[in-house]
Parts: sequence; structure tokens; C-alpha cells
Amino acid sequence: MTLVIDNIGELVTNVPALGAGPLGIVENTSVVIDGDTVVSVGAAGAVADERLDAGGRCVMPGFVDSHTHLVFAGDRAEEFTRRMAGEHYDGGGIRVTTEATRTAGREALRAGLARRLEEVHRAGTTTVEIKSGYGLSVESEAATTSLAAEVTPESTFMGAHVVPTEYLGRTDEYVDLVCGPMLEAVLPHVRWIDAFCERGAFDADQSRAVLEAGRAAGLGLRLHANQLDYGPGVRLGVEMGCASVDHCTYLSDEDIEALAAGDTVATFLPAADFSTRQPYPDARRAIDAGVTVAIASNCNPGSSYTSSISFCIALAVRDMNMTIDEAIAAATTGGAAALRRKDVGRLAPGGPAHLTILDAPSRHHLAYRPGVPLIWRTIGSDYVQPATEHETRRRKASP
Amino acid sequence: MTLVIDNIGELVTNVPALGAGPLGIVENTSVVIDGDTVVSVGAAGAVADERLDAGGRCVMPGFVDSHTHLVFAGDRAEEFTRRMAGEHYDGGGIRVTTEATRTAGREALRAGLARRLEEVHRAGTTTVEIKSGYGLSVESEAATTSLAAEVTPESTFMGAHVVPTEYLGRTDEYVDLVCGPMLEAVLPHVRWIDAFCERGAFDADQSRAVLEAGRAAGLGLRLHANQLDYGPGVRLGVEMGCASVDHCTYLSDEDIEALAAGDTVATFLPAADFSTRQPYPDARRAIDAGVTVAIASNCNPGSSYTSSISFCIALAVRDMNMTIDEAIAAATTGGAAALRRKDVGRLAPGGPAHLTILDAPSRHHLAYRPGVPLIWRTIGSDYVQPATEHETRRRKASP
Repeated sequence: MTLVIDNIGELVTNVPALGAGPLGIVENTSVVIDGDTVVSVGAAGAVADERLDAGGRCVMPGFVDSHTHLVFAGDRAEEFTRRMAGEHYDGGGIRVTTEATRTAGREALRAGLARRLEEVHRAGTTTVEIKSGYGLSVESEAATTSLAAEVTPESTFMGAHVVPTEYLGRTDEYVDLVCGPMLEAVLPHVRWIDAFCERGAFDADQSRAVLEAGRAAGLGLRLHANQLDYGPGVRLGVEMGCASVDHCTYLSDEDIEALAAGDTVATFLPAADFSTRQPYPDARRAIDAGVTVAIASNCNPGSSYTSSISFCIALAVRDMNMTIDEAIAAATTGGAAALRRKDVGRLAPGGPAHLTILDAPSRHHLAYRPGVPLIWRTIGSDYVQPATEHETRRRKASP
Repeated sequence: MTLVIDNIGELVTNVPALGAGPLGIVENTSVVIDGDTVVSVGAAGAVADERLDAGGRCVMPGFVDSHTHLVFAGDRAEEFTRRMAGEHYDGGGIRVTTEATRTAGREALRAGLARRLEEVHRAGTTTVEIKSGYGLSVESEAATTSLAAEVTPESTFMGAHVVPTEYLGRTDEYVDLVCGPMLEAVLPHVRWIDAFCERGAFDADQSRAVLEAGRAAGLGLRLHANQLDYGPGVRLGVEMGCASVDHCTYLSDEDIEALAAGDTVATFLPAADFSTRQPYPDARRAIDAGVTVAIASNCNPGSSYTSSISFCIALAVRDMNMTIDEAIAAATTGGAAALRRKDVGRLAPGGPAHLTILDAPSRHHLAYRPGVPLIWRTIGSDYVQPATEHETRRRKASP
């Protein structure tokens, strides 16, 4: 089954060889896709089984959201409201979500995940990373990572999110649990391991121990770092060869130098800075130093309850000194680099047909029209909706 | 035809007598409406012809967007992109839209207005003010105000937006045109008159002349003031008895005192401050001084191309020191006050059934979930879609 999307006003391929500038822009063009694969770009008069008239709209690769925590129960609107009234954010509210997540049944967690994935798809995202980190027990981390693995290849174990209540004052013991039985239990379900290296969460030695255990088990490495203050996290992440260090709200000159010299992506999460009233990082400094940067939503119920990459792009342009094209690259090829993926985040013959069509004539509208739902269609994705319990039973029963 | 909306998780009435707190909140309730009118709030077991299950969602009055410029042609994405790259905003780009608007045919302007009104409705807005100000000639201001009057009772004449190119250096002559033949031509189509009192646009004397001419013609008064710097605009607006002074990005102590002593609403336009990289005003100062405040979108192709009041609320909470409830009030009853309307912006028996249903259990999600399209349904409005040329001819042909 082939589909031609024609009457495209502006096509962002992210492949310089296919069009103009670093984003490989082609105007007044068409794209032919066959199932999940791009067949051709710009073929005049292409014929296909189905035709979608883009009406002069902008077509671009779907967003690659390389940092979310989509498996959880409950919300924290009240904590947000208190924070906006002046209360300080220190990450401690994570334990509130842990309580709700541990006591929710698997079906309730799956239903919430399904709703949020629908929202993610409507937001134009076609690749999504999902971290655990609200279970914080062997059983609950295994359950939440297995739910994430049902839907996305980019599932991340983050037992080292915060120290759960029952281990308060015994952080090293908890780290032993994370590196031992918890890691063993989640291993079948995850590609990545992550830790929150920050005062109040895990220090550099503890974070290093978690990453080393993950590496020994064959996992790729990621790290939350420098969200609330300057600290050793970013440099630790680069030294350990993490695919990405995330947040990077506070970057020292030494951090920037380390990032520029290594191959770790700096992933900015501007919606978290928005929702916790942190200052915005100056992405310009990192880009000018040669650092590869990404933007992600950090969708989670505490510090950043948004799935809108469009919103993150608008913030990055307004408040992080990125150009619109840099922000779009950061949310597509940047996110792909943060996941060490070369297939997604671009539109090229032979690659996956994961794309979004903006209800706008140009990509600039993503920043020019803040808050407006601009995603007209999202086509394809490398995540799927979770199976319902009913479907799972049927599948098991089938020969 | 009656409709009961039941299974409402949280109802915002904005009528303290109907519920808790200043927003008159009622939980686990229902609303019965008959045509365009609210019949009852909170009636248990209400029976009606139709039933809408709100599924525990939050129901609130539709937003009252008291400041937009929805009639125009073209867009200014390129100007926005240059601005984000560092170019200074001085309002001069208005003339670019004037050129496009003057040369667009009436049907093209009407089609653009229709598309934007659909977007406004999807954004949860049920009352919308529409200013002219991109015609800037007798003929084109008459055309654009008549289009606005086709769709909303809140149509505003803003010939004094900027001085058009052909009058550059002859501002006083242009003000005479605005106060004379232009005002006469638009008068059948407008309720309000407005002017842009700012360096580079019109000074206090010129703005006063425009407002006095409008008052003499029986129009209500509004004023754009203190957007780009401190100046005399806010005090002039209060002195003239304007219903609202809009922007208020730079407020001196004297401005706040004048606003508090008068009955002019201070209307903040945070999305314009976002899109022009202005500092955000400190709404807290105005509220604490007893000023009535509103929030509006300022939807226009130059300085604020968004129709999303949700986005404006999120900005007001994050960056203007408003609580979520204050921001919601500002976008409903505040907008109504800015239009000197007592009927809209609240939900009470006998009042208009103009409401929005959030895809969220509480109003707090409007700020807690920034960038997420949270408007599940919008019901009712006091604006209508413009008639097409075809329908207009048919109506005239009907007996």
C-alpha cells in the first residue's frame, strides 16, 4: 500500500543532500511512502494507491522526544499550584507519584500510558523514550519498565531517580539494590539506564556506580544532571560515555568544554525550567562551542507535565537563544543523536516514514504561533499503543 | 431543546454565591442549558432532551478574549524569525500587514477570518473582540470593520494603529482623517474606538483627539498603552474613562495609582511580551493595589500570533506573578469587565450558556500542562462564523 503526500508547501528532510541548508528544505514537493518506509522525496507526478493533499502545509520528520516519564499514576497539580505560589522545587514530590504508582494496578497504569501516548502522537512525536523511576522497588520498577517496553524500543531503567521513603538516610544501601536485584529484574525490559545526579538525589560516586552496573549489564547510559545547580553530573556523564546528559540548566565553562570534546549530547528540557521557574540555559553557548544539543519534553507529572514539543521549541527560541531551525533540529536529529539512532529524525528514501504535517505553511510557525495546536496529522511512529489485558490474553491463546 | 452536562468533576461558575471561593467552584455537579441559556447549575438528577457526560472533567465559562486583530491578510513569520535572531520590535511591521490587507479581496479576508474564528472556538474562547487597524484608509477600515461586525458585537475601530506609509511625517493630518471621514465610514460597524499611544505611533495629544472623536460619535473607548516603554498612555486612558488600557507592560507607580482610583481595566497581553521578547509585567503589583485586570491574546500576525488563552494563562502564572485562579478570572470575568459586559465570563442561571470543557479534572491544568491542547469542547459563543458571499446573496434574496 503506497501513499503519496503531495502539494507540500515546505518539506523538512533534515538531510542536507536532499534540499537547501542544514535542514534539507524542499519547497512545493511530494513524498511517497510504502507502509512504514519513505520511497521517494520530490518525485513529480508520483502515483500511489492513496493520495493525501497537504494543501501547501509544512511536512517534517516526527519529533524524537528523547526524555519522558510516561508510566505513572496520579497527578501533582496541587504541588504545581503551591510551587507557583512560591514553594521551592527540590524533586521531593517524586515520592508522591511513587506512592500512587506502586498502589495503582497494572491495568490502571497501562490505561494512563495509553492516554498519554495518544496525546504524544497528536503532538507530532513519532519516537519516544520512556523512563521508569516512579516504582523504586524491585517489583514496581519491573512492572513499569515492562509496560514501557510494551510500547517503545527506547525504554529506560531509572531506579536511581530519588531514594524512596523506606530507604531515606540509607542511600548507599538503596544504590546496592538498584545495581543488584532491581537491575536484574528490569533487564529484559530496557535498553538504557539513567540516574539523577543532583544534590538531594544521588552524588557523583553513587551515580557512577549505577551507570557502571548498567554498562556491565549491557545497557546504554544516560544521566540527569545540573538541573537545580552546578555540579559534577555533566562531566561524569561525558567521562562515562553517556549518550546524553539531560537538563543542563546550569553549565559551567568546564562542562561545555567536556561536552564539546566528548560525544555526549546535551539535552535541554525547557518545559521543566518553565514549570519549576528555573532560569533557562543559554543553548547558544553550547552550540557555539560545538556541542550536539537536543530538546525533549521531560513529560512527567511533577516538573514538566507537557507532551508538547512545539511548546518546547517556542521556549527554546524565545528564552534559550536558539534559532528556530536549531530548535527544530534539536527536537528531531538532536533527539535521535541522544538515543544513538541514525534512522529517525529525518525523511529520506529507505528510512522510516515517521512524519508530522503542520497546519501551517512553514516550520517557523512552531515558534511564531506559540500555544496553538499546529499538528495537523502525525503519520507513523516506532512506538505502539499498549495491548489491553484482553488482547494480551487473546494473543497468548492464539496458536 | 435542553442539554444536561453531567458528571462534571469541577465547575467554575465565577459566581461566588453559587460555589466556593471567588471563582464559585462546585464539585461533582451538572449544568442544564436550554438553547443559548443556562437553566440551572448543580441540579441533581436533572432531565433534559440531550445528555453530555463530562467524564469528571472541568467545566468553566468560555474565555472572553477582549483584544484581538483577527481581520488581516498575509503573515509575518519572517519578521518574527528576524526578531528572534535579534532584530528590535518597534511596531513598524504593521505596515507590511496593511499592504497585504489592502490588496486582499473581501472574500480572502473573510476566509482568513473564518479560519481564525474556528481556531478561536477550538481554543475555548466564546466572546471575542476584534479590532481593525490594518486598513488605515477610509475604504479599507470600513471594509475590515464591517467584516468584524458580521461576526461579533465587539468590533473596534483602530484607524490609529500606526501612521500608514502615505502619511509618514504627516501624523496630524492622518489623525484628522481618522477622526473625520474614516470614523464616519466605520461608525455603523463598531462599538469601540482604540488608539496606539506609544512613541513611534501616536502621542498623548493625538491619542486624546482620537478618543474624543470616538466618544462624540457614541463609541466606547479603549487604548493600547505602555507596551514598549513607560509613557502617558495608561494615565490618559484612565482620565478619558476608557473601558480598558491594553499591554501595560511598563507600569509606573503613578500608573498603578491612577488605575486603582479609576474604573479602567488593565489588560495584559503576555503572549505579545513573549513574542516580542519584552519583559513581563508584574501583575501582582496591580492586583495588590486593587486594579481590575484582564488577560487577552492580542492575536495578530505581527507581535502575538496566538489564539491560545490557555498559553496566556500559563505565562501569566509563570512569569507575571499571578495565581492560577487570578489568571483564570482575568481571562473570563476580567475580559468581560474590559468589554463592560456583565453577562459573559460566568455561568449562572439565566445567563448565556457559553462554556468550555477542559480535558482535565481541574482548572489548574491550564497552567500545569502548558502547551497541551486542553480544550475538549467549546459550547456556545456570542460570535458567529461570517456569511459567505453566496449565503449573503441568498439571505438578501429571501423574503
